[in-house]
Order: sequence, then C-alpha cells, then structure tokens
Amino acid sequence: MVSLKDARVAIVGLGLMGGSLAGALKKRSACREVWGVARREETIKEAMRLGFINVGTCDLAEGVEQADLIVLATPVRTILELIPQAGSLAPAGCLLMDLGSTKARIVKAMEALPPHLQAVGGHPMCGKEASGIEAAGGDLYEGATFVLTPLRRAPGPLALVLDPLSLGTVLDRTVQCQRTKDDKYRAPGTKGSGQALRRTSPEALMLAQELVKAVGAQPLLMDAERHDRLVAAVSHLPYLLSVGLVAATEEVAAEDELVWELVASGFRDTSRLAASDVTMMLDILLTNRQAAGEALSRFADQLNAIAHLLEASDEEGLRSSMEQVRKRREGIFR
Amino acid sequence: MVSLKDARVAIVGLGLMGGSLAGALKKRSACREVWGVARREETIKEAMRLGFINVGTCDLAEGVEQADLIVLATPVRTILELIPQAGSLAPAGCLLMDLGSTKARIVKAMEALPPHLQAVGGHPMCGKEASGIEAAGGDLYEGATFVLTPLRRAPGPLALVLDPLSLGTVLDRTVQCQRTKDDKYRAPGTKGSGQALRRTSPEALMLAQELVKAVGAQPLLMDAERHDRLVAAVSHLPYLLSVGLVAATEEVAAEDELVWELVASGFRDTSRLAASDVTMMLDILLTNRQAAGEALSRFADQLNAIAHLLEASDEEGLRSSMEQVRKRREGIFR
Repeated sequence: MVSLKDARVAIVGLGLMGGSLAGALKKRSACREVWGVARREETIKEAMRLGFINVGTCDLAEGVEQADLIVLATPVRTILELIPQAGSLAPAGCLLMDLGSTKARIVKAMEALPPHLQAVGGHPMCGKEASGIEAAGGDLYEGATFVLTPLRRAPGPLALVLDPLSLGTVLDRTVQCQRTKDDKYRAPGTKGSGQALRRTSPEALMLAQELVKAVGAQPLLMDAERHDRLVAAVSHLPYLLSVGLVAATEEVAAEDELVWELVASGFRDTSRLAASDVTMMLDILLTNRQAAGEALSRFADQLNAIAHLLEASDEEGLRSSMEQVRKRREGIFR
Repeated sequence: MVSLKDARVAIVGLGLMGGSLAGALKKRSACREVWGVARREETIKEAMRLGFINVGTCDLAEGVEQADLIVLATPVRTILELIPQAGSLAPAGCLLMDLGSTKARIVKAMEALPPHLQAVGGHPMCGKEASGIEAAGGDLYEGATFVLTPLRRAPGPLALVLDPLSLGTVLDRTVQCQRTKDDKYRAPGTKGSGQALRRTSPEALMLAQELVKAVGAQPLLMDAERHDRLVAAVSHLPYLLSVGLVAATEEVAAEDELVWELVASGFRDTSRLAASDVTMMLDILLTNRQAAGEALSRFADQLNAIAHLLEASDEEGLRSSMEQVRKRREGIFR
C-alpha cells in the first residue's frame, strides 16, 4: 500500500466535510494529488477556484478508478449507496474510507466489499451548522478527534471477529483472505496467488491514520457499534434538544411573538445545532435510531429528575446537581 | 429627576453584570459619577483598577445615600433582600432599578417601597457563563435587548393596575400618591404637599431608558409576569436542557469513559449554559418555578413527538419538523 505522500486521494462529495478535507490535504501537499467528485459542475468549479483539488469530475468512475485512497464524504445513506458502486470501480489495493457520522451500517456495507479492496470507517468529530463547499475550510479538522472504525470481519472462510479492545494485537496477526480470480484485482505488491492479505490490514489502517494526522486531527480507533452509542449521547442528542427547544419556542411565539425579542446568547448557542443540514441529520438519525432513542430516554429521565426537584423547591438537591454538572462542564472545556 | 449626565449612579454588586454596567457607564462618561458597592474589598480594588468606578465602598449606606440612581446587580434573591434595605437608605426622588433575571417578585418587592422613591425592574438580555468582575467588560451590553418592567400599582388609595399592552398611554396619566409626612422624603422638584407623583413616573422611566441606551442596549418595556413567562422559554429552559445533557452524558461516562473523547463543538455549545454560576441560576429558577416548570413540560411534549417520529422511522414527519425548525433558527440569527 502506498504512503499518503504518493497517494492519489479521491474525495467523493465536496460539501463542508469533503471540501474541507480536500483543502486541508491540498494546502499541506500531504498527498500526490487530490481528486474531487461532485454531483454538480459548479461545486467542482468552486473547489478548483478555492485550490482544494487538483482534478475534479462529476463522473464517479473517472474520479475513483485510479485512486489509491477513496474518501466518501456525503450524507450517510448516500455513503451506503456509494460503497458498492465505488467498490466495483476502485482498483485493487485501494483503501476506501468515509466521513459518515454513524458507523455500524457503513462498516457492515464495507464488509461486503470484494477482498482486493481495503476499507475502514471514519468519523471526524468536527463540523458546523453551515453546509456546502462555501462553508468549507482547510482548518476544519485542526485539533479534532477523528474516529476510525476498522472492519471486524475478514471475508471468506477465515473470518475473524476482532475484539476492539485488543485491536492492536489482533491486527498483527495475518488473516488469509479469499483471492479473486481476476488478476486485475490483485493487490499491488502481491505476486502470484495465495499471498497474505489482511482485512482491515495494518497497512490500510496506517494509511488512514496518516491521512487523519495530515489534516491536523487525532486518530481514535474504536468499534463501530461503540462509536454509534457514544455519538448518540454527545452529538445526536444535542441536536434533538436543539430542535425541541426551537419547536417549543415556536409554540410560545404562537401565543406571544415578543418571545423572539428576548433570545440572547444562551438561546443562540443551545439552539445552534437546530440549524444543521436536515438531510445529513436525517440520515444520521435514521441510521442510528436505537442508540438515539436510548439517549433521548436517558435524557428524559434526567430532565424529569430536575423538574421534580424544582417542583418541590428542593434547593439543596438542585444545587448539588447543578454544581456537579457545572464542574464537569468546566473540566471538559478548560 | 436628574438627567443621566448629572446623576450619581450607585451600582450594588460588581460581578459580571454590575461590573460591566459600571465599566460601560464610566468609560462613556455617561453619568456624573459611578459608585460601586461590593461585599469584598478586593472587588472594589479590582473595579478601581479597571477604571469601572469613581468611588467604591463595602458599606451599602455610604454607597447609596447620595445616589440619584441605584442599580441592584446581585443574584435575584439578594436583590429581594436589598430592595427594602436600599429603600430605607436612598434619598427622596432616587430611582431604584435592578438587573435581576426574573422580574415578578422583584417588582412586587419594589411596590412596597416608600412613595418618595421611584423604581423600575430591569433585565438586560446578555451575559456569559463566566462570572465575577474578572469576566466583566464595558461592551457586554452592546446591542442587547434590555427589558424594563415598570411598577404596575401605585401605592395608596388611587392604585392603578396598568395594562401592559397600553403602557404608553397609561403612563401619561397622573396618579396621585400618598405623601409621607417627613419632608426629607419629598421628591426633589416638588414643593409643598399634594404634589402629583407617578409610580413608575414617566421621568423615572425616561432616566432608566437613558441608562439602557447609554450602555449600547435597546430598551423594551414589558409587564413583569409576561417577561418571566417568556424568559422561562428562551433562557431558563435552555439552561435546564444544558444541565440535563451534561448529567445524561455523565451517566454514559460511568459505563464508558471514552465518551468524553467524542465531544465536539455541537456538545460544547449545547452544554455551555451548564457552566453558568449556580447561585445565580438557582435564584432564577426558584423565583420563577412555575413558568420554568411550564416551559419544561412544553419542551418534554415536543421531544416526545420527535422521539415517536424517530421510533416509527417517519422520515417525512421528521424532515418536516426539522426543516421548519431549521428555517426558524436561521431566521432568528441571520
């Protein structure tokens, strides 16, 4: 597998996340070439104008068939459609990764890829409520945690379920994979048949980590299901609260329009996520329904407890909860 | 009643709100003198060092007995204690106002002040989660909405309940007030007995509005109960959601500590209010329990509706709610 420096990276989807990734790679000259694939011609033009890509195309095949590394950077359900498409077009030995915000279903789809391809799930923990290439910038990933979710099952008879907690050791083992009959699909650098391949191989994971570090982010390896459960709590739940807050205020506004005159910075920040791109969020929620539902119900219990303390004017109970939460919040962001 | 330019303004409490108000007045030379009253000597020293006040004292009597305008800038329940104290010390004709975040109980306490004093409730819709004079700055009020809640009842037999919707017209009427027998308490500019006084007089309201505009804020006149109902929705509810979010994440962290590694800007913004000063927020919640409880229950209904749509995978229902909310959010802060 090539090193990032020598890789042609094809980014499919040039919105906020994909555009920013392209820009970060290109501006730091982190790879040989950045290719951009977008649905609309204007997006390609804008990406070229911003200096985010070397080559742009609206044709998926053209964009990916000579790539060393393909990054799918569209909403989650589009990624799910793109995985088999890109999989049938990508050259042998190519690494396929993505930037989708939920990982279990994506990793599952990646597990069905032909064995001559490498794949790993990815989720950079950054973003903003604005979307599209207009909002993109080369520094978006700077300092962010970037989760990588390696594929747990190797294809074929020697399938191995990786224990995420001992991933490092397991990845040192060699897993025999089924080879395809077509030489075209042979991994570069492997000769003859019966060569050892891994699924997600240490080399593929290394390349993915190289990319993560190249854009200023910190890689964090994690099992896809664990990722989905945790982001439901710290990302999908905050979005749902934001939506509920604005919806509840709409209801107040129907009785008293003056309410909008009283919104200040507290409301602005708490409601910021409600301005997120709807298609993206819908994909996230619908591909992580169960974990999001559990996070909602956990939150509802907490809110109920607070409501009861308030109703009972339980000053000491309130103070103790509020103080504990304040300290925790200060600890996280200080 | 003096104009702001000629007024000695005494600010009681030099934390974030009081300190910033003092700084804004002083730096713009908006009034004759800014006096600061604080509990701790160090706060006075810091306010002097920052150039926020002309004179500082830890003695309430010394601070207010020659003031033309007193601003109580402490947490709400301390304001409730200070109103009668400051009322017994303040010179006749003095205007007492406050910066408390809830208004109904404060306005009620102000209504019990002796009639030789003027009073009006105030609530600037700005702030940040940091507290104390270290966080204060002369530009905090810049562009903020600053609610003023005039007193509805005149003291004495000619008490008049103002209709908040026709406040402007009502304030043009003259309401006869009981005079005190002690000449010392006679309002300046009034001679003999039986002079007409208003409660909150147009002159007092004018002075309060002058102060609001002098620090760069926009005055908004409103009935105290209406204020409390509306801020419960756009200020106290967001705080409670923030607290609930951090508490729910604590619960997840007890099972999986890695959750803190995944918090990103969305969580940071949605949880920001949870870092607010606990004593201040406790005072706010406990003096606005009913409205805060109603806001919580309104929000819970909204969240339930979203949870049901999600559970049913009702994509169109979710999209329509999310899109409506997104448009509204964009409309408010654009």
